[in-house]
Amino acid sequence: MNYNFPKKINIREDILNYLTNSITDGKVKINEKLYSENFIANKFGVSRSLVHEIYTALDMMGIVKCIHGEGTYLVKSEGINCNSPLGLLLFLQGEDAKSLLEFRYIIELGIVEQVIDNISGNDVEIMLESIQEMEETDDYMIASENDVKIHMTYCNALHNPLVSFVYNLAIVYITFISNNNWESIYADNDTNKKNELIEQHKQIVSALVDKKPEKCIKAITNHLTYIEDKFLNY
Amino acid sequence: MNYNFPKKINIREDILNYLTNSITDGKVKINEKLYSENFIANKFGVSRSLVHEIYTALDMMGIVKCIHGEGTYLVKSEGINCNSPLGLLLFLQGEDAKSLLEFRYIIELGIVEQVIDNISGNDVEIMLESIQEMEETDDYMIASENDVKIHMTYCNALHNPLVSFVYNLAIVYITFISNNNWESIYADNDTNKKNELIEQHKQIVSALVDKKPEKCIKAITNHLTYIEDKFLNY
Repeated sequence: MNYNFPKKINIREDILNYLTNSITDGKVKINEKLYSENFIANKFGVSRSLVHEIYTALDMMGIVKCIHGEGTYLVKSEGINCNSPLGLLLFLQGEDAKSLLEFRYIIELGIVEQVIDNISGNDVEIMLESIQEMEETDDYMIASENDVKIHMTYCNALHNPLVSFVYNLAIVYITFISNNNWESIYADNDTNKKNELIEQHKQIVSALVDKKPEKCIKAITNHLTYIEDKFLNY
Repeated sequence: MNYNFPKKINIREDILNYLTNSITDGKVKINEKLYSENFIANKFGVSRSLVHEIYTALDMMGIVKCIHGEGTYLVKSEGINCNSPLGLLLFLQGEDAKSLLEFRYIIELGIVEQVIDNISGNDVEIMLESIQEMEETDDYMIASENDVKIHMTYCNALHNPLVSFVYNLAIVYITFISNNNWESIYADNDTNKKNELIEQHKQIVSALVDKKPEKCIKAITNHLTYIEDKFLNY
């Protein structure tokens, strides 16, 4: 049976290419119905169950929506769930924490000026509440969660769907590292490190509120360098 | 039958969360076998075919490899195929070309110094060959392909798997825009624009060869601004 395997993989790629081209060419538009499973099965001479597998995979990725008894629709993705398989893929791609930090330098420093232009009072409020929760909590997971939330709010304030998309993809991985860092702080009862990290986030938010790009770049650089020094270089 | 639908979605998410946690906790490591379809089916009280669908989707994303008769293995992803459904997802996420251009400014300018440190003679050769092919070809698709290849080579020279990952994700979308731009150049027989674009790529490569970050930042900014002015603002 094994010799069938490569053939099946190629056909799956052929079908994906066919669907991709139909979408990028504009033949199928958002909210419209995709080809029926039967149509694709006949066109490529494969079983309907193989087409169903492909459509299910696209559904899980948030590209299409399969509605039982109705068909498969092309949908506009509504942002990415942190637990989505895509984040997992990124986690598996980049096992090295230095790569992630470099990625964060590039994105978080690269968007400072536009974020300062775009950030809302509500965004600032969310960030200040998160800092307060970081100060008050006895649970390292809650501290970590709020830490990540501050950086997500910051990046999403750019209102660039592509940047939000890639940053949210990286969130599974950022959360994993952040959890480890905060766990070690609480395990060592290291009040000094805790206070330092909280102060760094205050500096970032204060620079955003003051609308000072230079100050913000300094605060973010300071924060990421601190993480690099204290948590990655031992 | 419809009332089963939300339940099924939740169970699928539960299973994905369970798998994600097993992987991020290190219970399942790369190249190791994932839980059998039967094990997951029994644990969550679902059919084996539902588990098979989920594993197939993860296989299509390059997270696992299903081997017929053997089981499902967690694999180390080997970079992303341009035609992968992930790129398609990004394409659907960000329909607006301005967002893509902003994304490119952030990434391509943010990595200049490290790329200059890391770029190899082979990378430069690939870029110079691509420029030559752009000059010589009569086919707008080949011109576009080489244009995209130059930027991919540039970004991959950073040797940061996360940055390569997100840039390669965006490639489906970048290619789509680039094809349109080059198609219009050839349709209008606009030698001026063609020469301008080729010259801009030469400037970028020459700055990389000279190892001059300032010059490189200027050349990339000039190139992206040109695209913005000539192809997005009409």
